Amino acid sequence: MSTAVGLKRAQPEERVDWKKRKAEIKEAKRKRKEAKLIKQVEKQNEQEFAGRANLEQNQNKKGRSYTVSVALPGSVLDNAQSAELRTYLAGQIARACVVFCVDEIIVFDEQGEDVKSVEGEFKGVGKKGQACIQLARILQYLECPQYLRKCFFPKHQDLQYAGLLNPLDSPHHMRIDEESEYREGIVLDRPTKQGKGSLVNCGMRKDVRIDKQLQSGLRVTVQLNKTQNQESKMCKGVVVAPHVPRTEGGLYWGYSVRLASCLSAVFTESPYKEEYDLTIGTSERGTNIDQIKLSPFKHVLVVFGGLQGLEASVDADQNLDVTDPSVLFDLYLNTCPSQGSRTIRTEEAILISMAGLRQKITAAFSEVSNGASKN
Amino acid sequence: MSTAVGLKRAQPEERVDWKKRKAEIKEAKRKRKEAKLIKQVEKQNEQEFAGRANLEQNQNKKGRSYTVSVALPGSVLDNAQSAELRTYLAGQIARACVVFCVDEIIVFDEQGEDVKSVEGEFKGVGKKGQACIQLARILQYLECPQYLRKCFFPKHQDLQYAGLLNPLDSPHHMRIDEESEYREGIVLDRPTKQGKGSLVNCGMRKDVRIDKQLQSGLRVTVQLNKTQNQESKMCKGVVVAPHVPRTEGGLYWGYSVRLASCLSAVFTESPYKEEYDLTIGTSERGTNIDQIKLSPFKHVLVVFGGLQGLEASVDADQNLDVTDPSVLFDLYLNTCPSQGSRTIRTEEAILISMAGLRQKITAAFSEVSNGASKN
Ligand SMILES: C[S@@+](CC[C@H](N)C(=O)[O-])C[C@H]1O[C@@H](n2cnc3c(N)ncnc32)[C@H](O)[C@@H]1O
Ligand SMILES: C[S@@+](CC[C@H](N)C(=O)[O-])C[C@H]1O[C@@H](n2cnc3c(N)ncnc32)[C@H](O)[C@@H]1O
Repeated sequence: MSTAVGLKRAQPEERVDWKKRKAEIKEAKRKRKEAKLIKQVEKQNEQEFAGRANLEQNQNKKGRSYTVSVALPGSVLDNAQSAELRTYLAGQIARACVVFCVDEIIVFDEQGEDVKSVEGEFKGVGKKGQACIQLARILQYLECPQYLRKCFFPKHQDLQYAGLLNPLDSPHHMRIDEESEYREGIVLDRPTKQGKGSLVNCGMRKDVRIDKQLQSGLRVTVQLNKTQNQESKMCKGVVVAPHVPRTEGGLYWGYSVRLASCLSAVFTESPYKEEYDLTIGTSERGTNIDQIKLSPFKHVLVVFGGLQGLEASVDADQNLDVTDPSVLFDLYLNTCPSQGSRTIRTEEAILISMAGLRQKITAAFSEVSNGASKN
Repeated sequence: MSTAVGLKRAQPEERVDWKKRKAEIKEAKRKRKEAKLIKQVEKQNEQEFAGRANLEQNQNKKGRSYTVSVALPGSVLDNAQSAELRTYLAGQIARACVVFCVDEIIVFDEQGEDVKSVEGEFKGVGKKGQACIQLARILQYLECPQYLRKCFFPKHQDLQYAGLLNPLDSPHHMRIDEESEYREGIVLDRPTKQGKGSLVNCGMRKDVRIDKQLQSGLRVTVQLNKTQNQESKMCKGVVVAPHVPRTEGGLYWGYSVRLASCLSAVFTESPYKEEYDLTIGTSERGTNIDQIKLSPFKHVLVVFGGLQGLEASVDADQNLDVTDPSVLFDLYLNTCPSQGSRTIRTEEAILISMAGLRQKITAAFSEVSNGASKN
């Protein structure tokens, strides 16, 4: 098809009464506008409905068993040209990870052993503070549901330009009246009777009484009871592990943030008992992603380099004897063969690489569930 | 494999002479550092060599016959929160297109018929001027090789924050001493003898004498003669069509920019004789990209929506009777199934969608060249 459907092409015109014609056109336009307005309203309703249906569909699908971790050096922030853009870049990274349902982001230091986190050198206006810590802080701030931010994020200069950040709009960032089986909350500092659980603010109109007595100020994941007493001044729920919305509800539930003092610590300090069972490095010098196929895994780790690539991260790490980063990983992938720019920026590479890997991951797990592993 | 290769793990320690031990460690560290430094220098050399080899490889590969066009509404700029970020966003779009070797970017107006380009309403500080025109101007500015910018881009407030833009680093942005068969240049205003061709500034140390007499100030693509007289004060070359580096040299040669007054004009005003023979719309409500397969094409067009999606672009277009955008396209694709954010921003969607399509396009053309079309 070389022309689009639905285009009205201009017709050759006959001699006409221009005054009348003009009026007709005007009237036709008015009607069209009116019709469009009506259609727009209808469509908006439809879309809202579709959005909700989408979310519900996600909630109905079986839980996701595997996790996805992404690691990158904090030094990427130092490539930004202003304090505002530094903040914006951190936001781009957060959004890229959320779009692809990343469960853990690891920010590693590639400045070498001599840089101390607290006494870090003063790097000039807008770059004060260490890149790793600022990146981690902004990532955490964005991940936190808006209604909990004032509790967990006191004013800090790393967050000075947080107003410029685009929201993550992830499923666990619930609006006040949104219904959901799970919610993030903070344990309130309210006296509760012995044997009765604590109260939790979950960003709803009512507070939630949970099953346990917990220390106030803790962030918790709450599973709300299926039936609630509408008359009651409170809702009821139980505290669950943060992975439950993912493993049982099939929902994406945000990411955790981890700092690593060097590249090797990204591997060795895995929070998962089984460690990472699939590790992927990324580089324009890697294997063409089109040529690989993934097998199912429990915990995948995808590692990105900074301005100088993963070679620089390896060089800065005194625990690593190797110089070729590829030996550190199960796979070392070029996720953008035939790139049209000499260099792809880390924040771009995350979106590009995760888009390529998403398809491979889906294929890996759907072949298993189809019982048709062709490998 | 659950642990990485090359990690040295800490050994259980015996009682030791700590003073001696410390000195040993210090000495070992020094040696390691020294060894690393040497390796680093070696690596840098290697990398530079690899970069060059890469470029040459690209130059050796057969020409690319098809083109890729991307269309988006200029209104995306209006989502930016400051004048700086507005500029930055335009730069993100340019880079996304270059990374995926896009040949044409079409900026269309989705504000409807009543917005005039020149007398556009004043939209407050930092949003002065119309979004479409500003976006197009920044895209053109970035595409122009640095050495030609001062000729083609006089000061303009749309370009006020151009200093914040990340360079495209595409193959046609040559450094002064870089060798290349093709170069972009500007025809110089120098008297030349009858029968002798014009002089062109191609950003090299010497000017280039071309085969034709052309009007000064024109931007031209020059193919340099294979053998040059090193003694001569000038180089020699011929003017070629801008597509030649792509179709014959197999090089990515930047993009052209086109303004369209509405969505339908994107289709109807195609610069290609054959028009677009594959049109793709993008939306979270489209078909799952994993389920499709492409056949070879001549000119693909990929269209993105703005804040309100392509529905809004269709609604604003008085030439279109339809309300469902999907009927306008050969394919209407969801390029990010199971997205973890309620909404993907247009600049993100370009990288994600083109990453998904890149793989499909490669597959389409390699199956043909393998003579193994399985469709
Ligand atoms: C600015 S690039 C690094 C460029 C550096 N000159 C090099 O040679 O590696 C930053 C990061 O983006 C990622 N990246 C860039 N291009 C890539 C590609 N084609 N495939 C996979 N990852 C890429 C890698 O993680 C890389 O370390
Ligand atoms: C902010 S989004 C539009 C969101 C709008 N609410 C809608 O429902 O379409 C801007 C553009 O990004 C692209 N986009 C967003 N999500 C996408 C997806 N999952 N697949 C393909 N394109 C997507 C589309 O071109 C869309 O018009």
